Amino acid sequence: MASYDVFKDLAIIIVFAKAFGILARKLKAPQVVGEIIAGLIIGPSLLHLVEPTDFLVQMAEIGVILLMFSAGLETNLRDLLKTGPLAFLIACAGVLIPLLGGTALYACYYGFDGIGTDSFYRAVFIGTIMTATSVSITVQTLRELGRLKGKVGTTILSAAIIDDVIGIIVLTFVIGFKNPESRPATVIINTLLFFAGSIVLGFIVFKLFKRVDGMFPHTRRIPILGLALCLILSYCAEHFFGIADITGAYVAGIILCSCKDSDYIAEKMDINSYMLFGPIFFASIGLKTSLANVNGDILLFSVFFVIVALAAKIVGCGLISRLCRFSWPDSLKIGIGMMTRGEVALIVSQKGLSVGLLTPEYFTCVILLIITSSVVTPIVLKVLYSKYPGETAVR
Amino acid sequence: MASYDVFKDLAIIIVFAKAFGILARKLKAPQVVGEIIAGLIIGPSLLHLVEPTDFLVQMAEIGVILLMFSAGLETNLRDLLKTGPLAFLIACAGVLIPLLGGTALYACYYGFDGIGTDSFYRAVFIGTIMTATSVSITVQTLRELGRLKGKVGTTILSAAIIDDVIGIIVLTFVIGFKNPESRPATVIINTLLFFAGSIVLGFIVFKLFKRVDGMFPHTRRIPILGLALCLILSYCAEHFFGIADITGAYVAGIILCSCKDSDYIAEKMDINSYMLFGPIFFASIGLKTSLANVNGDILLFSVFFVIVALAAKIVGCGLISRLCRFSWPDSLKIGIGMMTRGEVALIVSQKGLSVGLLTPEYFTCVILLIITSSVVTPIVLKVLYSKYPGETAVR
Repeated sequence: MASYDVFKDLAIIIVFAKAFGILARKLKAPQVVGEIIAGLIIGPSLLHLVEPTDFLVQMAEIGVILLMFSAGLETNLRDLLKTGPLAFLIACAGVLIPLLGGTALYACYYGFDGIGTDSFYRAVFIGTIMTATSVSITVQTLRELGRLKGKVGTTILSAAIIDDVIGIIVLTFVIGFKNPESRPATVIINTLLFFAGSIVLGFIVFKLFKRVDGMFPHTRRIPILGLALCLILSYCAEHFFGIADITGAYVAGIILCSCKDSDYIAEKMDINSYMLFGPIFFASIGLKTSLANVNGDILLFSVFFVIVALAAKIVGCGLISRLCRFSWPDSLKIGIGMMTRGEVALIVSQKGLSVGLLTPEYFTCVILLIITSSVVTPIVLKVLYSKYPGETAVR
Repeated sequence: MASYDVFKDLAIIIVFAKAFGILARKLKAPQVVGEIIAGLIIGPSLLHLVEPTDFLVQMAEIGVILLMFSAGLETNLRDLLKTGPLAFLIACAGVLIPLLGGTALYACYYGFDGIGTDSFYRAVFIGTIMTATSVSITVQTLRELGRLKGKVGTTILSAAIIDDVIGIIVLTFVIGFKNPESRPATVIINTLLFFAGSIVLGFIVFKLFKRVDGMFPHTRRIPILGLALCLILSYCAEHFFGIADITGAYVAGIILCSCKDSDYIAEKMDINSYMLFGPIFFASIGLKTSLANVNGDILLFSVFFVIVALAAKIVGCGLISRLCRFSWPDSLKIGIGMMTRGEVALIVSQKGLSVGLLTPEYFTCVILLIITSSVVTPIVLKVLYSKYPGETAVR
């Protein structure tokens, strides 16, 4: 392969990804679905235009890191603390019920070999994929309905962020425990050490950034240092603590999210993401998804997977909301609002693939879940709001 | 090597490159020099923190393409045509004399084996490296002196752009002729075909972009399509015409430089460049520069190289300016203003390295040339302008 062949690969990926992304948006589906399908079409499954080379795999890895860093950066810690306890409870239920549901589904479908076996971890991993909410579709819908700032809206937003954090912690544990060399105690200690270290380091780095930010606001060095922090934490998480690199990138984002220039950093990261690394990541999911191994069995499992994933969020988040004195209709709105999945589910799946907890054909389930939830949520939310326009009072 | 090791490499590169870049600017040297020195320090020559892996080499390749694309995008075709004939003559002399000077220097220093031999092409390549002007330092100085819009200023600017174009054409021929399988006629035909094809394609693409631009101004698809065009032309240049990929990228930039949104595209490209790809490219020059092979011989050659490169531009551009009825002081100003070298000289050297026309230790010459010219030019220009403040009248 000549060195310039990589230009061809990249050109094909970004053109197809963008075209199918726009097409998907026109069809009211999320853009990432279009990008994944672009990858499927140009990849070994169909047209054979692009093969998943080492270079593309590493570019995709950087893409994931940048996406998780951005997700962390966009967190609003202050809002989070305000809606705190209530959202925290809902988020916990929104993680726990899907985690149990997904595990149970896999165990029922493929049989249960006992705790600690390989198939047990695979089952738990299926549950883990179901945990992370991606509320961008919900936010879009609520904004259109003029309900984003209401109590239901803010609760959903906060709960979704907290549930990402909890989801990442669950992922960290699952991957840690799966490693045959690791002992449970070591995993727990490592994880605690990493988060404790992150808090200390985060505090120092935050102070430092605040100073640099004050001295040189809106200069190039701010996003560059941010990117460096993201890369360093990603590396350290994996290398020293055996924790997923995406956890490190996410933590780096959270550390910087309260900086004055966090929007500035996020903006620059976003450009890097959408121009090159993002499309490469999502298309690479398509490239790796082998349609050859998709059979009736997997398809049937996918259908159950989607049903359980959606139902678990509605039941988990909805019931807890009702217990927290939301009205029945509002509880249902929260449950529905929390059921959308997106990028993070893909990122988690990708991580599972790289540590051997998932095989490529299961991407089908995740893609189906993203499509279904993104199509169903807006429709149901609109119906609910037009039928029950009243909302539980704020406070 | 674990997949996450790449994060460590990238973090080290961008932190060191940025730190040394800032340091260089504080010392009034160009930032790229700092970035190259950063590469030298972290690389195999000194600290062994980063090795030039395949991945980094390919990232650096993308970096070069992006830099050349940006250079093309920033061209102002209209201004170029206005100052046209005069600037064209100066640019031709500014390419020809350094090309001959560099070739002669190498032939005198290392001996001459006859036209068509390997050492002949190496000699011509040394000349080629000397051709490309990089006027950013000159522009900065003229701006400080309030002389950028004067006749000398606009002439320098236009001549520098034209001399990049001619330099790229020379490079194209040198690389084409060097290939043992290629016959001179084929090289000439291929080159003509490429540029003719680029004009036809350029016209169509330009019209197309104008339409997309009108329909969706300032949307993400504009820079994405621009990047795609850059990648496609880079690939096609090498693959179908045997022409340097950087020529393709530069042509892509020229095609889009008159678009309404060209600044918008350039801005987004710039962010991709300075965040990641630019530092990786310049640092990778440092990584590849092996100090181990630098001996007294090379150092002596470097001194001659710098002298010839600077003198050739002053003589070539200065004399032609005088012939074009500029006053003697103004002719000297133009000669001095044209002698700065920068990124493009590095990009050309890098290309020579990859096709085997140059060995890494010659990077020393180029780096020395960039440093010397960037330090000397502003000082001399300031002295000249304070001694001869009058300027040849416009028209």
